[in-house]
Amino acid sequence: MIKRTPSINTLGMMMTPQAAAKPSTETIHPLDRLSSLLGDDLAKVNDLIIARMDSHVALIPQLAAWLIAAGGKRIRPLLTLGCTRLYGYTGDRPFGLSAAVEFIHTATLLHDDVVDESIERRGKPSANMVFGNQASVLVGDFLFCRSFQLMVDDGSIDVLRILSDASATIAEGEVLQLSAANDLSTGMEKYTAIIEAKTAALFAAACEVGPIIAGADATAQKAMRDFGYYLGMAFQIADDVLDYSANREKLGKTVGDDFREGKLTAPVLMALERADETEREFWARTMERREQTDADLATAQALLVKHDALNRGLALAREYEAKARTALHTAPKNAVRDALDDVLSFAVGRDH
Amino acid sequence: MIKRTPSINTLGMMMTPQAAAKPSTETIHPLDRLSSLLGDDLAKVNDLIIARMDSHVALIPQLAAWLIAAGGKRIRPLLTLGCTRLYGYTGDRPFGLSAAVEFIHTATLLHDDVVDESIERRGKPSANMVFGNQASVLVGDFLFCRSFQLMVDDGSIDVLRILSDASATIAEGEVLQLSAANDLSTGMEKYTAIIEAKTAALFAAACEVGPIIAGADATAQKAMRDFGYYLGMAFQIADDVLDYSANREKLGKTVGDDFREGKLTAPVLMALERADETEREFWARTMERREQTDADLATAQALLVKHDALNRGLALAREYEAKARTALHTAPKNAVRDALDDVLSFAVGRDH
Repeated sequence: MIKRTPSINTLGMMMTPQAAAKPSTETIHPLDRLSSLLGDDLAKVNDLIIARMDSHVALIPQLAAWLIAAGGKRIRPLLTLGCTRLYGYTGDRPFGLSAAVEFIHTATLLHDDVVDESIERRGKPSANMVFGNQASVLVGDFLFCRSFQLMVDDGSIDVLRILSDASATIAEGEVLQLSAANDLSTGMEKYTAIIEAKTAALFAAACEVGPIIAGADATAQKAMRDFGYYLGMAFQIADDVLDYSANREKLGKTVGDDFREGKLTAPVLMALERADETEREFWARTMERREQTDADLATAQALLVKHDALNRGLALAREYEAKARTALHTAPKNAVRDALDDVLSFAVGRDH
Repeated sequence: MIKRTPSINTLGMMMTPQAAAKPSTETIHPLDRLSSLLGDDLAKVNDLIIARMDSHVALIPQLAAWLIAAGGKRIRPLLTLGCTRLYGYTGDRPFGLSAAVEFIHTATLLHDDVVDESIERRGKPSANMVFGNQASVLVGDFLFCRSFQLMVDDGSIDVLRILSDASATIAEGEVLQLSAANDLSTGMEKYTAIIEAKTAALFAAACEVGPIIAGADATAQKAMRDFGYYLGMAFQIADDVLDYSANREKLGKTVGDDFREGKLTAPVLMALERADETEREFWARTMERREQTDADLATAQALLVKHDALNRGLALAREYEAKARTALHTAPKNAVRDALDDVLSFAVGRDH
């Protein structure tokens, strides 16, 4: 089985580097407030994640340990925890469901990396590079099954419906994205459908589960679903913009992954709408035919700046952010809500 | 959406070629009795399978149509239907759950073929060859999610637990099989663990669901679980023996798939136990190092005959068959039980 690392602090550091260091005014990370407010809860979710990734089949905990060491912000389980505590529920039920939500996400990442032939994830070689595609596919399946076992342990059919619907929607979104890859005729409408399914559906489900656990009413449930949905949309669009961000490049993070894979995302689609003949041919060559040279990413970035596509992309993300805030502010004002407000600002405001 | 083929008969022919033709004494297939006894039920399950494979994402029904056209015996949903009707329940509940069981199986096949780099399934190019690995992984995920949605629609937490546990066990078994591939030190113990997880777990779950739906008691539930488990073991061992069968070759079916993939199955493990130095080196070269020539399969088959490994393999399968029969015969004697008896005889008795 996976050995617990020596102390909860070390573990915390591996999992949420932001939360591990004592927050200071200089280094404070926008997820810190929520992570530290829900620190005890998150530690329990992390324990459960480690416990339920275990198996007598050695390759499973080996691959799981790699994923855990690779870290991740745990934003989805934090949302489930937050949206439960927001409505005053203090019991244990959100732990298993938060772990279930993270397992769905992790399974998706594993399969995503196989499908995209990714070589890196969070600055480390991706699991498919280290353990092979076969293991990534099968361990992804295992984690997905584990997520359902966790939901069954919880026992709520309503929650099972929300999370199984979200999972089916994610899978549909992944297939839709595959069909749209390298296809210059992908418009903003199809792009919106893809990110709704791929990202916003699980954010919405992760949040909606909160008021259900807390026994809040249907209005609260709808509000948190909307909050999660709009937050997910804002988060994904901002992420797609940041993939071309020069600032991110300065921070030593990889830039241009979507470009290299020929994924048609918001900034490119916005630049395409205003592209002249020569520019269109540039996008067709690099994204559709995927004939790329080393200089092409810089050209792509310059075209996005020329057509103000990064700013327009962020403006779209801010529209979703505003809608998310409206939904969030229907909930009782308390420390958790303020922290969720921070997460929302972070989704679009971050520069990396 | 997927168009229903013109008539239920045509559809039946695509799905269960055995059941489509009017059974005659010469051509009667051992699954026929169960299929024709449960013909109306099976037609409803097939309708549901087609309906729930649908999606607005075109690639999903396209790949699904390929799978449906490729056929399949529908043995697992027939078991769920049979084990429900066996206990006198006449309502609609088994349809959705039978479809769910088939979806789990189909998702597993899709991922299996990607992992094994298969080029054929049921005599047709496999989905990964036609639609690519990416689509096979993602549509597999989708079908798996659909199976959980079907279970949620049914609403029984007990059933959800049984099928989500089985799904996790299957995934573990697939990873275990991956770790054991091309490893000559795989013994009968590990092989047994692999087929328990890969095959018997879903057979057991498919059968156990029956008495639960029918509201039968815990004894019936345990009996059907045992029946399914032993049937699954018998079925898989016989399948692994048949993969080397000269008779199967005469029927124009592919032989030696496991050999070519270096999968250590019962017959080879049994021959290995009695192998001399030269034979051991033969198996090491062909199965571990996978250096194979065209003549090697015939040599492998000869070694299995020399060590009586095919007969010993079938004898082991017959032991499981006998245990399955004992479990089955605790159920009320009726036409469905007789038909399930036929299925059991077929599992080991078939020669293709």
